[in-house]
Parts: sequence; structure tokens; C-alpha cells
Amino acid sequence: METRPATQADEDSIWSIIEPVIRAGETYALPRSMTRAEALAYWMGDDRATFVHEDDGRVVGTYYLRANQAGGGDHVANCGYMTRAAESGRGVARSMCEHSMEQARERGFRAMQFNFVVGANGRAVRLWLFLGFEIVGRLPGAFHHPSKGYVDALVMYRSLGAI
Amino acid sequence: METRPATQADEDSIWSIIEPVIRAGETYALPRSMTRAEALAYWMGDDRATFVHEDDGRVVGTYYLRANQAGGGDHVANCGYMTRAAESGRGVARSMCEHSMEQARERGFRAMQFNFVVGANGRAVRLWLFLGFEIVGRLPGAFHHPSKGYVDALVMYRSLGAI
Repeated sequence: METRPATQADEDSIWSIIEPVIRAGETYALPRSMTRAEALAYWMGDDRATFVHEDDGRVVGTYYLRANQAGGGDHVANCGYMTRAAESGRGVARSMCEHSMEQARERGFRAMQFNFVVGANGRAVRLWLFLGFEIVGRLPGAFHHPSKGYVDALVMYRSLGAI
Repeated sequence: METRPATQADEDSIWSIIEPVIRAGETYALPRSMTRAEALAYWMGDDRATFVHEDDGRVVGTYYLRANQAGGGDHVANCGYMTRAAESGRGVARSMCEHSMEQARERGFRAMQFNFVVGANGRAVRLWLFLGFEIVGRLPGAFHHPSKGYVDALVMYRSLGAI
């Protein structure tokens, strides 16, 4: 298992991972109709560093790391993670999140914030809690889930200082 | 007093209001060194509606209204407001916020969220509370204030439904 910076050669792999997640519309506040070009421009934008997670040379997950705010807020990092559906439950997201926290520390970030964790996404919420994030905010009905209707979104936050 | 959509002809007025706020770096997480072109591209971007607030034909405040998230989060609005320094304390921000809630309702938004209210900005926090917003999140040390150091930022949220 290795996590490394993404390159243009990874675009097919990344798209094959993020397209189903975007189309499902259950966990990310992104337009479900996004084209490949729009989605890759977002996921691999100039304002962020994008990584892929390989298992036996195959890309099974991807994440981005960026500053969550500019100016006086640019010491707090933000990430998004997506795992290939078939690889769910094998520790890919956990491994990527641990990698992202190391990367964020190296880049001088002092904390990490997730702005919009869909509360109905119990697996993700539990994983972030396990990895030291706290629920610091709850946005009532802020996410319209395709089958569950309006559900809460959570703001989660973690210091990157010494534990 | 009138609040109306901003046009290109308002750019000088808008810049004269937002430049001091950006340069001060005390209330918005924007790069303090932003150029006029960068700041206007942000404040009047294609992804938002921008308004100016006039008093006796003079622009004394400006705000933008946009969707806070895309996809399943696009029913929640987000705004930013700035008042000309000399007009502070005269109800300009209150008037603009009330206008923005009407505009948001007309556009079909169900709620409004402020992602990053600097906790040290007591006047703003009190005004948003007065106008029905609740503090739904607290981001510890998420804003680096030029003189106060690391201070908390607040997430504030308000339903736009019938009161």
C-alpha cells in the first residue's frame, strides 16, 4: 500500500472512483450531473494537492488536501477522500486520512476541518471520530439526501498538534 | 435607503468599502494583500448575486448572496456583508441582512449559513443572533487575528422558513 501524489496519468483511475460517488449524491455536496472534466478540475484543482492510494499497484482511493480558508484562516487544512466502492471497509479511507494529517503537518497546517460530513454517513462519522476529529458543529437539514430527504451535516475538526 | 443589485458602475464604490476590511484582516478570511481585481472578482463573482446598499444615493454597504454548497447542499444560502467604516453602527448591516434573507427566500433557499464568523467580532455575532441566527458550531483557533492571535470562528445558521 502506498499513497503518492496524483499525476495526469491517474485521471482515468480517479474518475472511475469519484464518478460513482458523485452520481450517487449521498455523501458529497457536488452536482450529481458533473462532467468528467468538471469533476477532475474540482478534485485536482490548482488550489489543492491531490493524492492516490495504491494497493498492489492499483489505485483504490484518492484524496485532496487544501487550505480550508484564505487569509487568517489558512492554517486550517481541509480534505476530501473517496474510496473505490469495491474496496470499502478495508482501511483505505483510514490510511488516506492518516497520510493527509502527516502531509498537512509537513505543510505547516495546525488543524484540519471537514465542513460538511453528511450525518447519515455513519461509517465516515465514526471513522473521523476514531481518528481524533470532534463534531464541532451540526447544520440542521443542510444536506438533501436522494433517498433520506433533508438530513443534518456535521462540521468536524481536529488539531494537528502533538497528541 | 435602498438595496439594489450591483453593477459594474459600482466597482469603485464597492472597492472603497471592501479594501479597508480586507487590508485590516480582522473579520474576513481573505488574503490581506488581495489586489482590487482579485477582490472584485471574488465579491462580484459569477457564482453569486452582489448588492449595494445606498443611503441618499451614496453606496454605504455591499453584500453577496450565493449557495453555500453545490449538489445536495444547494438549498442553503451564504452571504458576506461589508459596511463603509464611517457608517458603522447605523443599521446598514442589519438592513442588508434582512434584505438578503428576503432575496434568499425568493430564490428558493430554505436556510442561510455563515461559515466563518470571527468570534472576536462581537458586534457581528450579536447582530446575527438578534436576526435569528444560532451558533451551531465553534472552530477552535481557526482564525488568526492580526492583533489577538488565534481566536475561534463560529458557524451560524438560520432557517428561512416561517417564523
